[in-house]
Amino acid sequence: MHAYEFLNKVPHSKTSSTGLSMILDKGLGLNNASDLVQSAGEYIDFIKFGWGTAATVESDLVIKKNKIYHDNKILTYPGGTLLEIAIQEKKLDLFFKETSRLGFNAIEVSDGSTSLSKKIRDNVIFLAREKGFFVVSEVGKKNPLLDHKISIETRVSQIHSDIASGSNFVIIEAREAGKNIGIYDESGNIISQELDILAEIGTDKLIFEAPLKKQQVDLILKFGPQVNLGNIASTDAISLETLRTGLRGDTVGKVK
Amino acid sequence: MHAYEFLNKVPHSKTSSTGLSMILDKGLGLNNASDLVQSAGEYIDFIKFGWGTAATVESDLVIKKNKIYHDNKILTYPGGTLLEIAIQEKKLDLFFKETSRLGFNAIEVSDGSTSLSKKIRDNVIFLAREKGFFVVSEVGKKNPLLDHKISIETRVSQIHSDIASGSNFVIIEAREAGKNIGIYDESGNIISQELDILAEIGTDKLIFEAPLKKQQVDLILKFGPQVNLGNIASTDAISLETLRTGLRGDTVGKVK
Amino acid sequence: MHAYEFLNKVPHSKTSSTGLSMILDKGLGLNNASDLVQSAGEYIDFIKFGWGTAATVESDLVIKKNKIYHDNKILTYPGGTLLEIAIQEKKLDLFFKETSRLGFNAIEVSDGSTSLSKKIRDNVIFLAREKGFFVVSEVGKKNPLLDHKISIETRVSQIHSDIASGSNFVIIEAREAGKNIGIYDESGNIISQELDILAEIGTDKLIFEAPLKKQQVDLILKFGPQVNLGNIASTDAISLETLRTGLRGDTVGKVK
Repeated sequence: MHAYEFLNKVPHSKTSSTGLSMILDKGLGLNNASDLVQSAGEYIDFIKFGWGTAATVESDLVIKKNKIYHDNKILTYPGGTLLEIAIQEKKLDLFFKETSRLGFNAIEVSDGSTSLSKKIRDNVIFLAREKGFFVVSEVGKKNPLLDHKISIETRVSQIHSDIASGSNFVIIEAREAGKNIGIYDESGNIISQELDILAEIGTDKLIFEAPLKKQQVDLILKFGPQVNLGNIASTDAISLETLRTGLRGDTVGKVK
Repeated sequence: MHAYEFLNKVPHSKTSSTGLSMILDKGLGLNNASDLVQSAGEYIDFIKFGWGTAATVESDLVIKKNKIYHDNKILTYPGGTLLEIAIQEKKLDLFFKETSRLGFNAIEVSDGSTSLSKKIRDNVIFLAREKGFFVVSEVGKKNPLLDHKISIETRVSQIHSDIASGSNFVIIEAREAGKNIGIYDESGNIISQELDILAEIGTDKLIFEAPLKKQQVDLILKFGPQVNLGNIASTDAISLETLRTGLRGDTVGKVK
Repeated sequence: MHAYEFLNKVPHSKTSSTGLSMILDKGLGLNNASDLVQSAGEYIDFIKFGWGTAATVESDLVIKKNKIYHDNKILTYPGGTLLEIAIQEKKLDLFFKETSRLGFNAIEVSDGSTSLSKKIRDNVIFLAREKGFFVVSEVGKKNPLLDHKISIETRVSQIHSDIASGSNFVIIEAREAGKNIGIYDESGNIISQELDILAEIGTDKLIFEAPLKKQQVDLILKFGPQVNLGNIASTDAISLETLRTGLRGDTVGKVK
C-alpha cells in the first residue's frame, strides 16, 4: 500500500502505458541498484547502463543488476556508444550475443560518437528487432558542434525513418549534462522552436533526455505527465515521479 | 570512539542543543538510509522526506526508514508541500493520522506552493502541536517571482507569528537548489541586507536552508557553528559537520 | 570475466602501473563503500577520506572501510587538512600512530589551509616515509586568493623539492569543486599556460585533481589515458575509466 493514498494525485504508473521514465545507471553497485528499485521500481520503464559502462565491469555484476531490474519489470540496455564501437569493429553479431548473455532485453541504436549510413542504421534496427530485442534509437550527436549542424528537418526525418525501420521509441539526445545539445541551449533551457516542431509530429514515440529538473518540469508542463523522459539521474527517480503526479512545488495544481 | 579524538575541534553534537542540521531525503532506499545514519547519524537532528516523496513510495518503506532514523534520535517529517495538498483537499485530519501511522514525529507547515490565510496557518500549527507533533514552519514561496514579492518585514512578521502559534522552529526557504530564493541571489550568494535583518531578530529559532557548500560556509562564519542549517544533501551530511567543527579548509582556524 | 571482452579498448588497469585514479570518499557508509569497490575497485589506486571527514566518524567505520579498500589493493589516506591541524597542534607523532591504528597506509602532506616552512614540510614527508607510509604531497592553497599568488615557478620548485624529500607523488590541488584554483579558471577550464609548464617537467609523478568531467576529458586528451587523476567523485569512478579506455563519446577513437 502506498503512503498517503487518500490524497488526489495525477494517476501514473508504468503499467498505464503512458509517461515512460528512463533512468541512467552509470555504474551502480548492487546495494544502490537494489535501493533504486525499492523506492522507484514501480515507476521506471527503462534503465540504461550509460555509454560503455557495461563493458567496464565484471559480467557477473551486469547479470545480477539486470536480474534485479527485470524482476521489477524494467527494460534494460547498454548505451548506444557500445553498439557504435561494435559496429566500427565489425562485431555486431558478437555484440548481440553478448548483450543477450548479459541479460539485457533492449538495444539502443545511435550514431552519437560515430557515423552510420542510413542503410546500416536501418539494418541494425531491423536485426536487433529480429533478435528479439526491444529497440530504442537515438537522434543526435555527442559533440555539440556536430549536433548543432543537424537541422530540425533532418531530426524529424530520422525519427520517421527509425520508426519505419522498427524502432519502438526514438530518443532525443541530451547526454548526462543536458546543456548545449539537442533541444537545449547552453544553460540547459529548452529551445522552443525546435520543440514546437517535434510537438507537431507527436511525442508518443519520443523519449526526451532531460537530466535537469527544470527540463523535466518544462516538458511536463508543456506535454503533460505522460511525456516520456530519459537520462534521469538514479537519485532523481522519485523526484521525477512527484513532478509527474503534482506532488512537487513546480507542478502542484498544474498537471492532470 | 571517534577517530583522531586527540585533535582539538569545535565541540558539536546534537545533544548539545545547538547547531541543528536538517538533511534532505529525496527518496533513499534502506541501504542508503542505513549508510546515512551510520556515518552521520550522531549529527543529524531532522530528516525531511522532501516535498511529496513520502506519498510516492510504499508505506512499508517510509515506516522502515522512520524507524532507522528514530533509532538514531532524529526527528522526521514529510515535506510541507504534502500538507498543503491535504489542506487544499480538506483532508487535514486524515493527513495527521496517516503521518502518525507512518511513524513521522514532526510536521512541516508551509504555504510555498499554495496560499493559507494567517488564521488557517496558525490553526494548523496549533493542531499539529496538539496532536503531539514537533512543528517546524517554513517562510517563503517555491516560485521565485512570488518569493521576491515577500518583503523582509513580512518575513519577520510571519516568523514571530509562527512562533507565537507554537512552531518549534521556523525554516527560511531555499528549495533543493538554493538559488534565486529567500536570502540567496541568482548565483546562490547571500543577500546581506536580508540576512542582517534576520540576524537582528535572533537566529536561535531559525533554520536556514543552505544546500550549497558556500552558503553553509558563509552562514557558519557569520553566525558560528551553532547556526541551524537545512536542506543539506544526504551525501553532504559529514562535510557539513567538518565545516562546523573546523575540519575543512574553509573554516580551519575560523570557528570556535 | 569482463562484459564485452571482445571489444578493443585502451588497455588500462591499476596493475599496469600507469594512469592512477584517486577517488574522494567524503563520508561513505559501508554499503556504498562496498558498492564502490564492487563496480570500480579494480581501477582505483587511491581513496582519500576527504579533508577532516575521517575525524568526524567512529573509528570502527574508518577501520572497516580501510579493510574493504585494502582488500581491493587500494591505498588510503586521510585528507591533508587533518595532518595540517595535527602539525599546528604539535601532535604529529600522535597523528602518525592514530593513522596507522585506523588502517591507513598512506599520508597526504599539504599546506592548503595553513603554512609550513620548507624545512618542516620536508621533514614531515621524510618522517612519514620512515614510518612506512606511502606519501603523496599536495601543492596549492584552498583559498583561491592565496592560491593565485603562487607563481608557476614556485609550484614547479615545490614539486621538485617534495619528490627529493621522498614524496611518491605530488598532487595539484583543485578541491572538490575544481573551479578558480590551481590549473583551472573560474569556469573550471584548464589554464593552458600553467599546464604547459607542468607538462614540460613531466607528469609521471603528478596527480591532477580533476573533479569535473570536462577536466578529465581534457587531461586525458592532452596527456593520454595514463595521466594520473584525483578528487574523482565516488559516483564517477566507472565513468572515468570509460573515458580512459575510449568507451565514452568524449574519447571514442581519440585515445590509445
